[in-house]
Amino acid sequence: MLKTVQKTNAGRFFEDYCIGQMIDHAVPRTVGTGERAMYHALYPARHVLYSSDAFAQFSGLAASPLDDMIAFHVVFGKTVPDISLNARANLGYAEGRWLKPVWPGDTLRAQSEVIGLKQNSNGQTGVVWVRSRGLNQHDETVLEYVRWVMVKKRDPESPAPETMVPDLAEVLEPAALVVPAGLDFTRYDSTLAGEPHRLRDYTVGETIDHVDGVTIEEAEHMMATRLWQNTSKTHFDGTMRDDGSRLIYGGHVISMARTLSFNGLANAQMIAGLNAGSHANPCFAGDTVRAWSEVLDLAETAAPGVGAIRLRLVATKGGAPFTLRDDGGKYLPHVLLDLDYWALMPL
Amino acid sequence: MLKTVQKTNAGRFFEDYCIGQMIDHAVPRTVGTGERAMYHALYPARHVLYSSDAFAQFSGLAASPLDDMIAFHVVFGKTVPDISLNARANLGYAEGRWLKPVWPGDTLRAQSEVIGLKQNSNGQTGVVWVRSRGLNQHDETVLEYVRWVMVKKRDPESPAPETMVPDLAEVLEPAALVVPAGLDFTRYDSTLAGEPHRLRDYTVGETIDHVDGVTIEEAEHMMATRLWQNTSKTHFDGTMRDDGSRLIYGGHVISMARTLSFNGLANAQMIAGLNAGSHANPCFAGDTVRAWSEVLDLAETAAPGVGAIRLRLVATKGGAPFTLRDDGGKYLPHVLLDLDYWALMPL
Amino acid sequence: MLKTVQKTNAGRFFEDYCIGQMIDHAVPRTVGTGERAMYHALYPARHVLYSSDAFAQFSGLAASPLDDMIAFHVVFGKTVPDISLNARANLGYAEGRWLKPVWPGDTLRAQSEVIGLKQNSNGQTGVVWVRSRGLNQHDETVLEYVRWVMVKKRDPESPAPETMVPDLAEVLEPAALVVPAGLDFTRYDSTLAGEPHRLRDYTVGETIDHVDGVTIEEAEHMMATRLWQNTSKTHFDGTMRDDGSRLIYGGHVISMARTLSFNGLANAQMIAGLNAGSHANPCFAGDTVRAWSEVLDLAETAAPGVGAIRLRLVATKGGAPFTLRDDGGKYLPHVLLDLDYWALMPL
Repeated sequence: MLKTVQKTNAGRFFEDYCIGQMIDHAVPRTVGTGERAMYHALYPARHVLYSSDAFAQFSGLAASPLDDMIAFHVVFGKTVPDISLNARANLGYAEGRWLKPVWPGDTLRAQSEVIGLKQNSNGQTGVVWVRSRGLNQHDETVLEYVRWVMVKKRDPESPAPETMVPDLAEVLEPAALVVPAGLDFTRYDSTLAGEPHRLRDYTVGETIDHVDGVTIEEAEHMMATRLWQNTSKTHFDGTMRDDGSRLIYGGHVISMARTLSFNGLANAQMIAGLNAGSHANPCFAGDTVRAWSEVLDLAETAAPGVGAIRLRLVATKGGAPFTLRDDGGKYLPHVLLDLDYWALMPL
Repeated sequence: MLKTVQKTNAGRFFEDYCIGQMIDHAVPRTVGTGERAMYHALYPARHVLYSSDAFAQFSGLAASPLDDMIAFHVVFGKTVPDISLNARANLGYAEGRWLKPVWPGDTLRAQSEVIGLKQNSNGQTGVVWVRSRGLNQHDETVLEYVRWVMVKKRDPESPAPETMVPDLAEVLEPAALVVPAGLDFTRYDSTLAGEPHRLRDYTVGETIDHVDGVTIEEAEHMMATRLWQNTSKTHFDGTMRDDGSRLIYGGHVISMARTLSFNGLANAQMIAGLNAGSHANPCFAGDTVRAWSEVLDLAETAAPGVGAIRLRLVATKGGAPFTLRDDGGKYLPHVLLDLDYWALMPL
Repeated sequence: MLKTVQKTNAGRFFEDYCIGQMIDHAVPRTVGTGERAMYHALYPARHVLYSSDAFAQFSGLAASPLDDMIAFHVVFGKTVPDISLNARANLGYAEGRWLKPVWPGDTLRAQSEVIGLKQNSNGQTGVVWVRSRGLNQHDETVLEYVRWVMVKKRDPESPAPETMVPDLAEVLEPAALVVPAGLDFTRYDSTLAGEPHRLRDYTVGETIDHVDGVTIEEAEHMMATRLWQNTSKTHFDGTMRDDGSRLIYGGHVISMARTLSFNGLANAQMIAGLNAGSHANPCFAGDTVRAWSEVLDLAETAAPGVGAIRLRLVATKGGAPFTLRDDGGKYLPHVLLDLDYWALMPL
């Protein structure tokens, strides 16, 4: 590599990406029960499969895996210095799949492939699509997802690359979801899990107000975001905004909403697929985050007793539950997150 | 169980309890060294038996157990959705006993038996007494205690149950305390433990001002309370009070006071019994918590070198130490906690 | 030991120290992956050797050791009740050496030897020099350093001790640095480590602006300081200052600056030596901490592929990078820390 005078990482600009480029992200991370304890301190996490080794073993797993969102955050955090340090906006997610559980003691690394490029008409920015993968110490892919971000150009005069917009599935087919080896919900204990509602008790179109609210503090979201080694300045540096507040990492809102959704969806145990996601409005310390869900689909899987539920998960900072967009189709100002995902649930 | 449209847990009301009812609480939890690290970050915890494997092994234990209050908080947190989600007040504790150490890797679950009921004269609320137990993965009881709470009635018109007030010991006899198997303080190293004072150095009636103060922040008490999977809304939702503050979980004050009491009671190592406890006044972020203790009793145990000290532990948010009640017998407004417990101490 | 009425620890005063005195500090501590997770949550720590077991093993170590600063903070915290509870100022560090990695599961204890005493001319205070050591459960010294503090006298009338100012090295010779057994950087993977710059890419006199800033919250620095069982009241008690703020532990600033320096010094992996350090100005919550470094020296070691880089690390709370002192030689008011240390870096 070239020896440079400038040793700090200025991040990549739109011109620095090309189709087919493979980026190995830095700083692999060994994760364990310490990260799990932090996750429980930062979020109201209660899904029992991630709380109890005994319950996980009774469900056919070797032990309680780390929360699926821990895997997501660690992989996402690794991609930040290469993908989103100069990003203006995180535009979307698609085709996210959790392929292997992450166990305490696993070491995760991440890589991304550039699969789409499109310069914006203003010539100042462009959209970059990457397929990111998290791999464990056995080089097994534990997680993959597509993300696209709007990135600044270093030089507005530089020529636009050939436009390439990837063809992405709007929704993962249930058959594309991977159920962890051994998972068996035929002897599922609803009392220990916290709620009686199984897949058969939900209907498509049903909505659930998760009721509880959490008012967020600066210290908490910064600790969470640091824990995933996410280096985006905007989450930590209070001098970037006049009021000293720091923009909260969108993933913090995802984890907050997902864990709040325990109340009404306690049996939506493992996240298996991420179909789509929008960070509709920014979140700041002092906001009180609430969540509601809508059942989008129900499916079976090949694993014993294991079904899949497709959910819309909406996080808000006020406003009435079940309100999402205005008449013009724009997200209402109190909507923080609109996520579309698949979870595994006992039949 | 009945299939309901309403899927979120609204909690139990006074009418939902009956004498003899056994409630298995949800979401067992595997606890470990991650929770211990969090405990050390959240509280000024220095009791050496919970800090050093080497010291614990020298004292006849297999390793350093998790802090007794971690066990208490985990069990207490599990009971919240079933016992105190609609509670107006946490009225008291009695007959608390720590029966087995909790080791890193243990999985705890909780159950409660309803042992008392008494409707209040206003017909709006009633008092529920439960004996709660924490069990490990071997179905051994690690902890038990009685707690009583004032719970709202769903329907003020519903008939009152037969009044049943349990007969509870005001104080546990020393003989009822359980010393962990193997515990031996005959070679106790006071230098490593931090203070020279042993059981023989304390006298009944002696008071100790623990001197140090900790000013509490919202982020800290919320992380602590979440860590124990305590779901009581009032600790997290800043919209419930006009000033945005959140009521601090009473157990946070107990742990803060207990760990502050190291300074003067460094050798009061293990908590063995909880005789009584009152959360005298609410605690909020910004309060500076201090603590003082009074020696209530001294006793021997059958274990080598192991004595028991009965202590009153008082947490305050201002005011002079050793002041507790006004002339009318009411707790002074600066008193947060009045706890009566037994700890094991080298003779 | 003498039975005293006063049971709390009032700390030592200047008269309580004498040359040659050995102090065994209390409360040994078992540290593990929980403390590592907390460290990652509290600081933007990304040095790969402390993040990935796989990387550490590839570099010849058994596993990823705990961060060198965790070892420092734990040892430092243990010394506080005996050395700096009544200190007016932490004046300096010298001859700090990391001698053995600290592994998850190790139990650390600390001892200090008084090596210097000098009463100040005002007769109110004196300077105490101690050489502190951290030892693991095998009685191996993992860390040693000299620190000197200004301590209050109990009685200004008490006679001054004979002045003894230790002869301390201004800078450790590279040959005095200890490289962990087995460490081998000949197959070092710069991509995984995050930056391409190796020892040969740095030149003496070069300065690096680490660019990123972190705005500190009360909850964070208190959790960090508690985690190391540091009992200094001034970090926790908001009633000690009119504005309710708490003085931030100087070590928190060291860890913040060191981890921020990843951006530009990602390959300065292990801290091997501490030559000097000044806490130039106090740090409070709300300050945005930034860091810059200056390369002071470059050296080889006997270990394969392992070089040593001597760095000045400066933490600031504003002001332009690379500004340090005013014309009179006094630290500028925005300078928080001026640290001089050796780190191990691939050649």
